[in-house]
Amino acid sequence: MRSAARLFLTRSYQSVGVDELCAVADVRKGSFYHYFPAKSDLAKAVVDHHAAALWAHLDRAALSDRPGARLHAMADAVGEIQAAFEARFGHVVGCPFGNLAAELATTDDGLREHLAAVFAEWERRLAVLCQAGADPARLARILVAQFQGMILLAKTGRSAASEIPDALHHVIALNLREVP
Amino acid sequence: MRSAARLFLTRSYQSVGVDELCAVADVRKGSFYHYFPAKSDLAKAVVDHHAAALWAHLDRAALSDRPGARLHAMADAVGEIQAAFEARFGHVVGCPFGNLAAELATTDDGLREHLAAVFAEWERRLAVLCQAGADPARLARILVAQFQGMILLAKTGRSAASEIPDALHHVIALNLREVP
Repeated sequence: MRSAARLFLTRSYQSVGVDELCAVADVRKGSFYHYFPAKSDLAKAVVDHHAAALWAHLDRAALSDRPGARLHAMADAVGEIQAAFEARFGHVVGCPFGNLAAELATTDDGLREHLAAVFAEWERRLAVLCQAGADPARLARILVAQFQGMILLAKTGRSAASEIPDALHHVIALNLREVP
Repeated sequence: MRSAARLFLTRSYQSVGVDELCAVADVRKGSFYHYFPAKSDLAKAVVDHHAAALWAHLDRAALSDRPGARLHAMADAVGEIQAAFEARFGHVVGCPFGNLAAELATTDDGLREHLAAVFAEWERRLAVLCQAGADPARLARILVAQFQGMILLAKTGRSAASEIPDALHHVIALNLREVP
C-alpha cells in the first residue's frame, strides 16, 4: 500500500501495473490479490490512507479558538502536506485525491464514488471550521476547489508548494471580511 | 483529432490506445503516424484545439466595458463550455487541460510543459481582464485555480455544470470589493 501510494503519486494510476507493484513491494502476486481483489481496491486503500492523514491535520487546525484562525490553520495544514511531498519527491506531485479523480472519475465509477465521498467529507469538515461565516457550505466548497486548482497548477507549472497556501489565505481573508 | 478530443475527455489519455483511435476515426495507422509521430503529439494538438476555443470565448468576454463585467463574463464563458460538455456527454467530464495535466504531468514532461504554457496564457489573459484590481496576476491565478478545482469537484461528485460559474462569481465579487 505504501509502495502504491508513492508510485501513484509520483507517476499515475494507469502507468503502474500490478506486476511492478508486487516487485517493488517484494510480495507475491497471490498475496496481492488475497488482500486486494482488484487494483482499484488498492487505490481505495491508498485514498483512505491519505484521507486519514488529512483529517489528522484538519483536527489540529480545528484547535485554534477563533474561526478565522482555524481557517488559516487549515490552509497551512494542506500547505504542509504539499511541502512534505515536494521535499520528498523534488517537486509538487499533486493532490492524492485530485490526481486519481482527474485520471479515473470517467472510467472507474466505484473509485469515483469513493473519491467523491472524500471530497464531500473534506467539505463537511471545512464547513464546521467556517461556521461563523455567512454560507459555510459554499465557502467550504470554494476552499476545497481552490486547493485542488492551486495544487494542479503547481504540479503542472513546477512552481513551489509554498505558493499553494498563499492563495487560500487571500481567499479566506476576503471571505472573513464578509463575517459581521 | 476530434475523435481523440472526445475519447480523452470522456475516458482518459492512457485508457485510449492508438489502435482504437485509428478504428474510431477510420484512418490507417500509417496515416496516423504521418501526422502525429507519437500519441503525445496528438494530445498536444487536442490541447491546442481546446485552447483556441477558450481564447475565442475569453475574447468575447473581454468586449464588456467594465472590468467587473468582464470578469463575470469570463466566469460565464467557462460555465458555457462546461455546460456544452455536460449536454453532450450527460455529465461534467472535466477540463480538457486539467484532466491531461493531472494524469500526465508526472510522466510526460513535454506534455506537462505544453499544458503549463496554456495555463500561463490563460492567467495572462485573465490578468488583462483584471487590470483594475489590486494584484491582477494573483487574482488571475486564483480564478484559474478556482475553475480547475470546481470542474474537478463537479466531475467527481457528478454535480451540475451550472454550479461551476457560481463559485467564480462569488470569488470575483469578493475581489472586486477590494477595487477602490
